[in-house]
Amino acid sequence: MLLRAAKGEEVERAPVWLMRQAGRVLPEYRAVRAKSKNFIEFVKNPELAAEVTVQPVDILGVDAAIIFSDILVIPEAMGLPYQMIEAKGPWFEKTLATQEDVDKLIITDGSNLQYVYDAIRLAKKQLDNRVPLIGFCGAPWTLLAYMVEGSGSKTFSKAKKFLYTQPKLAHQTLEKIAKSSINYLLAQVEAGANLIQIFDSWAGVLSPEMHKEFSLKYMNMICDEVSKKVPVTIFAKDAHFALAEIKNSSCSVVGLDWSVNPQEARKIIGSNKTLQGNADPCLLYASFDEIEKQTKQMLNAFGKDRYIANLGHGLYPDTEKEKVKFFVDCIKKHSYTKTPQTLHA
Amino acid sequence: MLLRAAKGEEVERAPVWLMRQAGRVLPEYRAVRAKSKNFIEFVKNPELAAEVTVQPVDILGVDAAIIFSDILVIPEAMGLPYQMIEAKGPWFEKTLATQEDVDKLIITDGSNLQYVYDAIRLAKKQLDNRVPLIGFCGAPWTLLAYMVEGSGSKTFSKAKKFLYTQPKLAHQTLEKIAKSSINYLLAQVEAGANLIQIFDSWAGVLSPEMHKEFSLKYMNMICDEVSKKVPVTIFAKDAHFALAEIKNSSCSVVGLDWSVNPQEARKIIGSNKTLQGNADPCLLYASFDEIEKQTKQMLNAFGKDRYIANLGHGLYPDTEKEKVKFFVDCIKKHSYTKTPQTLHA
Repeated sequence: MLLRAAKGEEVERAPVWLMRQAGRVLPEYRAVRAKSKNFIEFVKNPELAAEVTVQPVDILGVDAAIIFSDILVIPEAMGLPYQMIEAKGPWFEKTLATQEDVDKLIITDGSNLQYVYDAIRLAKKQLDNRVPLIGFCGAPWTLLAYMVEGSGSKTFSKAKKFLYTQPKLAHQTLEKIAKSSINYLLAQVEAGANLIQIFDSWAGVLSPEMHKEFSLKYMNMICDEVSKKVPVTIFAKDAHFALAEIKNSSCSVVGLDWSVNPQEARKIIGSNKTLQGNADPCLLYASFDEIEKQTKQMLNAFGKDRYIANLGHGLYPDTEKEKVKFFVDCIKKHSYTKTPQTLHA
Repeated sequence: MLLRAAKGEEVERAPVWLMRQAGRVLPEYRAVRAKSKNFIEFVKNPELAAEVTVQPVDILGVDAAIIFSDILVIPEAMGLPYQMIEAKGPWFEKTLATQEDVDKLIITDGSNLQYVYDAIRLAKKQLDNRVPLIGFCGAPWTLLAYMVEGSGSKTFSKAKKFLYTQPKLAHQTLEKIAKSSINYLLAQVEAGANLIQIFDSWAGVLSPEMHKEFSLKYMNMICDEVSKKVPVTIFAKDAHFALAEIKNSSCSVVGLDWSVNPQEARKIIGSNKTLQGNADPCLLYASFDEIEKQTKQMLNAFGKDRYIANLGHGLYPDTEKEKVKFFVDCIKKHSYTKTPQTLHA
């Protein structure tokens, strides 16, 4: 059903999945996670990765699984390994600054990411065609941001400085990342991924012109190749300004964060793409009544067709599992009769 | 000239000032800052605060001074003191969670913020009417965000949880903050502030509906009182979605971040308000040529009238002083002949 929604075919109700559904919000995830001594070892263990990938389908009843992995496996496969520091986030020992650094970056043919494909194959087997499996990668800009900055950042000013001061080097890097990502994603599809999502998590720190030049261009490069095989979703977080450009992309689905009004987005994107999103993850802290009320409003605003229900960002780890399940149930319960109410929603 | 621009009167060229112009980007600031053992002591020293307030007028040639202070002096004046931890940001020992916490909050009449008014009076004397002085406060939502969260945050999910789970308590808190802020700002005006800016730094983490209910409502409450005396600027960072609502506010100036297209903003806001902004602070890392080119584009997009040139956020501390000065000079040099080029800018 989710694949039909992605392609714009008829559906009986809006399908739903949640970003970070395979994650700390589930006690069952935390139990599996505890078996690895660190996050990266966990990501590299296909059995464990497949297990947590399938969990939310069984436990929450979502309409798709997303392979459990990390966007930063690509920098690592290109020669920049990282660590995941508890409560702090990713940290890179080596970062990108000079031409020499960029020249040293490998364009991976994808073969050094076998553990991801193994996890996909295992997960597909366990899913047994109940729901489709989503593969993913980070947008080249978002990956470059970490590779230059060396860690997370509120402003990513170091990474943006790289774009402003060394634009040629930035473009060389972005092209290498895009080529690596294409190889990686095609191998994910080969292993069984039915849809691909590109996460541009740090789209929002760029100006509209910078985003077009340094981010969207490379997402489109990936999209043009991968969408020959499976539908592709572009999720450019906080990049409200980029929607008019994304309209012309070869992607099938556009992810929206909660800062964007669904009907405004539909007006900009037109009727040829599926929209995905966009509840505020903090809504799931609210009472059951409030969750139901706002979920209905969201469903009314998007309508049933060319729509995949989701949050506008990943689940926050301290959300109650019961609330998450309730949100999923609300969508299943309330979406099938809805048509978009463009005038009074 | 800046006041005339704020009020929509004729100007010879676009006036310019920069958020965080009184700050670490100036070696002269760092020299004065070194005289205090910590940031809060520095903020509370009227002589030193006045000195760094005036510095950018002399050194950078900006068209306004902004009083050197901190938005968190209001939570402190209401009973929640904070510390500024080097390289980490603000930290509150006590935070807001319960009805009892909110009941304990003082609505300040402003009298416990005398050091700010003293600094304003000293700065006004040193400015000797060369340029106007801008006073400021944080938006009630942005202050509540810190008071609940207890520190900075990428998502402010704890503060948003407070809004979703205890909306009544949130409204009580926001009203207390708004009343305190009105008293504080009127005393700033009494001391000599010629224009007031309200900084809604964390506007962007809220959904459009939440921002309207929990943030804009209280900024408007402040605005309605203060704009009887002096023009008021609302700067809701990353809240592109709020522009259509801000249009109906009693503010005279609307601050824009760099994610917003100037001409789109003008279309939404209409012709009755002045726009302020919106260069990406990272532009000042670029070459002199690139800075000049993009500054001209910005001036073309905004036009000369009802416009105050600025960045779309505060200066980053590692920006070169020469680049900052050059940006100011570019605006002075290129803005006076410009009219908005709505068709091809």
